[in-house]
Amino acid sequence: MKVVIVGGVAGGASAAARIRRLDENAQIIVFERTGYISYANCGLPYYVGGVITDENQLTLQTPGSFWDRFRVDMRVRHEVTAIDTEKKIVTVCGLDTGKTYEESYDKLILSPGAKPTQPNMPGIDSDKIFTLRTVEDTLKVHKFISAEKPKTATVIGGGFIGIEMAENLAELGLKVSLIEYADHLLAPLDFDMACAVHAQMESHGIRLMLNTAVTGFETKENTTVTKTAGGCEIASDIVLLSIGVTPDTALAKEAGLELGLKGSILVNDKMETSAQDVYAVGDAVEIRHFVTGKKALISLAGPANKQGRIAADNICGGNSVYRGSQGSSVIKVFDMTAASTGINEAAAKAAEIDYERVVLSPASHAGYYPGGKVMTMKVLYEKKTLKLLGAQIVGFDGVDKRIDVLATAIRAGMKATALADLDLAYAPPYSSAKDPVNMAGFMIENIVTEKVKQFHHDEVDALPRDGSVTLLDSRTPMEYAGGHADGFMNIPVDDLRERLSEIPKNKPVYVMCQSGLRSYLACRILSQNGYNCYNFSGGYRFYNLVKQGKKQSESTYPCGMNQ
Amino acid sequence: MKVVIVGGVAGGASAAARIRRLDENAQIIVFERTGYISYANCGLPYYVGGVITDENQLTLQTPGSFWDRFRVDMRVRHEVTAIDTEKKIVTVCGLDTGKTYEESYDKLILSPGAKPTQPNMPGIDSDKIFTLRTVEDTLKVHKFISAEKPKTATVIGGGFIGIEMAENLAELGLKVSLIEYADHLLAPLDFDMACAVHAQMESHGIRLMLNTAVTGFETKENTTVTKTAGGCEIASDIVLLSIGVTPDTALAKEAGLELGLKGSILVNDKMETSAQDVYAVGDAVEIRHFVTGKKALISLAGPANKQGRIAADNICGGNSVYRGSQGSSVIKVFDMTAASTGINEAAAKAAEIDYERVVLSPASHAGYYPGGKVMTMKVLYEKKTLKLLGAQIVGFDGVDKRIDVLATAIRAGMKATALADLDLAYAPPYSSAKDPVNMAGFMIENIVTEKVKQFHHDEVDALPRDGSVTLLDSRTPMEYAGGHADGFMNIPVDDLRERLSEIPKNKPVYVMCQSGLRSYLACRILSQNGYNCYNFSGGYRFYNLVKQGKKQSESTYPCGMNQ
Repeated sequence: MKVVIVGGVAGGASAAARIRRLDENAQIIVFERTGYISYANCGLPYYVGGVITDENQLTLQTPGSFWDRFRVDMRVRHEVTAIDTEKKIVTVCGLDTGKTYEESYDKLILSPGAKPTQPNMPGIDSDKIFTLRTVEDTLKVHKFISAEKPKTATVIGGGFIGIEMAENLAELGLKVSLIEYADHLLAPLDFDMACAVHAQMESHGIRLMLNTAVTGFETKENTTVTKTAGGCEIASDIVLLSIGVTPDTALAKEAGLELGLKGSILVNDKMETSAQDVYAVGDAVEIRHFVTGKKALISLAGPANKQGRIAADNICGGNSVYRGSQGSSVIKVFDMTAASTGINEAAAKAAEIDYERVVLSPASHAGYYPGGKVMTMKVLYEKKTLKLLGAQIVGFDGVDKRIDVLATAIRAGMKATALADLDLAYAPPYSSAKDPVNMAGFMIENIVTEKVKQFHHDEVDALPRDGSVTLLDSRTPMEYAGGHADGFMNIPVDDLRERLSEIPKNKPVYVMCQSGLRSYLACRILSQNGYNCYNFSGGYRFYNLVKQGKKQSESTYPCGMNQ
Repeated sequence: MKVVIVGGVAGGASAAARIRRLDENAQIIVFERTGYISYANCGLPYYVGGVITDENQLTLQTPGSFWDRFRVDMRVRHEVTAIDTEKKIVTVCGLDTGKTYEESYDKLILSPGAKPTQPNMPGIDSDKIFTLRTVEDTLKVHKFISAEKPKTATVIGGGFIGIEMAENLAELGLKVSLIEYADHLLAPLDFDMACAVHAQMESHGIRLMLNTAVTGFETKENTTVTKTAGGCEIASDIVLLSIGVTPDTALAKEAGLELGLKGSILVNDKMETSAQDVYAVGDAVEIRHFVTGKKALISLAGPANKQGRIAADNICGGNSVYRGSQGSSVIKVFDMTAASTGINEAAAKAAEIDYERVVLSPASHAGYYPGGKVMTMKVLYEKKTLKLLGAQIVGFDGVDKRIDVLATAIRAGMKATALADLDLAYAPPYSSAKDPVNMAGFMIENIVTEKVKQFHHDEVDALPRDGSVTLLDSRTPMEYAGGHADGFMNIPVDDLRERLSEIPKNKPVYVMCQSGLRSYLACRILSQNGYNCYNFSGGYRFYNLVKQGKKQSESTYPCGMNQ
């Protein structure tokens, strides 16, 4: 059997190694357009920032080492330019020689990945505008920074790469502006959860410009001026473009393969394309979202590696199935961690799922043991079925643990209320006897069994301030004095039972505390005393975070500012 | 409704608060024998060690604060001395007044906990022999250390408390001996997994005496001499006894409640005892093990809290069910973390379950990102059903995350092979594209689909060295020269294909490498070339760890040594 693989990074390299493990006799040829195989894609920003200091760390695998270990013929700087799925032949161009030749295959795997989206706008061709996808890109940025010693940077696009690059450039001492078209960074998060990330970026000196469309670039003296739709001009010494990626599927399209979303390659759950004996894996393929069952593009290393393995199994006579991706992701934002799994509210709305959510602010470990940090956790579930839909967590410690626990619960098809039962490992340095994930389960159980009703931050402003409802803050007078939501009166929960007479019985009561726990207790007291009562989800802490975030998102920076 | 609760710590305090949230009108009285309620049980060793510096951090809840928040009548230093389940009356003794009185109840919850096991042996009554269970115990130890400035300590019993106390005393500068009756510390771990913990303890200056029975104590001058069955005498300034706990159920027994294992209180899954309207929760009750379905005693804070909540639900007209505990636990051992969930090999054997296990040594995060640490992970599953049975992990980073993921998978009833599919969050600072838990899944899948057969460390010595089998080390010559298992020949995996002629075809081949990955590849090469081949589980790294651990466990310390 002769297997040809197009693309030698995550999915392609995984497939090649797995095929060899399954079949000592297969001939395996991998064509990789860049000069590097199986490189540390997700580590590239950290090489720019000097966190990873040794270039060789990024490229531990070489064609030589891959041959020695796996007898895989890794041909770097070779581009496959055409596929004949009838004759089962690919046309290959050696980029260094310029020579073109043909290679036959019995089985073909396409793992071309995705390429940075390159908008068509004036000035985009400047040699001071960079993207970051390959090792070559990275070395170019690294070299530019070493040689030119830029003092200012503009990063365009606030996804994973954009945030990681902003952080790494800032850590190098550059003054960084980050421009994002949407109202918030990190699309996998909802706006409310992203607010803490925004605050974190600004507190580390990143100038954040949200809701901002870039219209073009202009070279002025030695700087590149980024122009925005609002008429701003941001001059900087280096520009990093990271507005997303597009499946790199010109080759597949040309070969007549059926395509899916945004020109991605259509595959079935065995990673087979529409053409006989042709498989595709990684960022270039359309997959099913594990939670919604809908078509999706998910550009992440984990799924790419797993898909490569599955394609290899099937090529070697196995029967492996890819069950879809739930988009679990995590990102370091300076000393903060932001993570998500499954779908967020925006996606739930788009999928027309009738969902509910809980928001909580648990500590990463027992309060009495030093070093615990508060995180913000949001968990979504479908109202009718109680199916877990997704989770988002932002915090400083223990975030990656909880997102992986929730990702596992989602994968297992657990009901949201079952989170209360999870038997998780507790010792004071690591958790609490009731883990944050258990707490989310308790909260969901309380809602489902109608022990409490909720209201959310996007409903607070619309509540009447005309006395027709009671707005109650159940924190201490000192906390209340330090800041509270407009129109809320203060009765501490510990005094509530004695001061019930101050609250009219015939009006709904909306209760808020700092984190949502005391207001829940207040709601229990009130509802058992005959009140119709709503608990504010996430507490004043979350309310204020989102309120500040909205201000920040809507604010306009002074234009034409030369940093 | 009048609810009486015996015991005001984890289970009892949780129940009291939950009952109040469910029923504003209930009268709730809690009798707590000690002077403290709802205290930070698991934090006590860290107060002794000065990690937690403020005593008030251990006792954040007071009877006053509990009254203010929950209107629960917390009567500390009150001991319930009798229960009349017919008349529904408890007899209470006020420990400070000495006065006895009766209190009626509609519902009774017993949360008496467990008490430190106190062996009946000579000299045990010395006032320099301490246990650690209550705040009072802790303050006593703390006071003794402050006043007497002990230089040497003997800790007897290597469970959670024993290890945490040994660590905390060592951190205070004491020379610590830790004596354990069994062949290894931490009963939830198997011997092989505990070996790394042993090495860690010794590297931090703890003198470890395994397989050692204590026979008695003697006061000599100002020290307490601990005597062992082997004739050793260990003199030290302070002795900490932590050989386990016993359900504190004299009261329940006296009241005629049905008892279970080791005198624990028998309850059904609603936490109801054999007596009408009497519930029991926490360390004192017998539960069902979630994995084996068998009766078990599990003294952990998480289950106690959950059981308290469930008893409260049922008392207030709900229908909550406790689905059993899987004993998930984690412990800090200096900078190391050891964790487990479900059952270990010893328990699987005892339950006569036909299990298999994989052992792997993954890094906590991507190798190219600084700071990653290798952990040792063992995952057990039932051969026939592929049901996940348990996991143990020992390492320095990311251990608590992986054990909680595995605990969740076990809870969800996932098959062991499904670990390969888990969609976990990856970024270089947190994980690898193939998370350690995914890797365990891949390995299990390879075994289940018969791509590889394993052999284990307890089988290596018994392998013939007479040439009837081939013992093969597939590492590099340099690694091989640095140490290898007795009788193993060396052919690096990368050279294996060319050197197959050196390996007789008609004899089984047993292959070992450093971690198990290269030997797996070697096995794939060999088996496809017609060899009958076995891969060593865990690699030489694990083999050597266990070998050293066995030596350490069997070694005898010089006796009579005055530290």
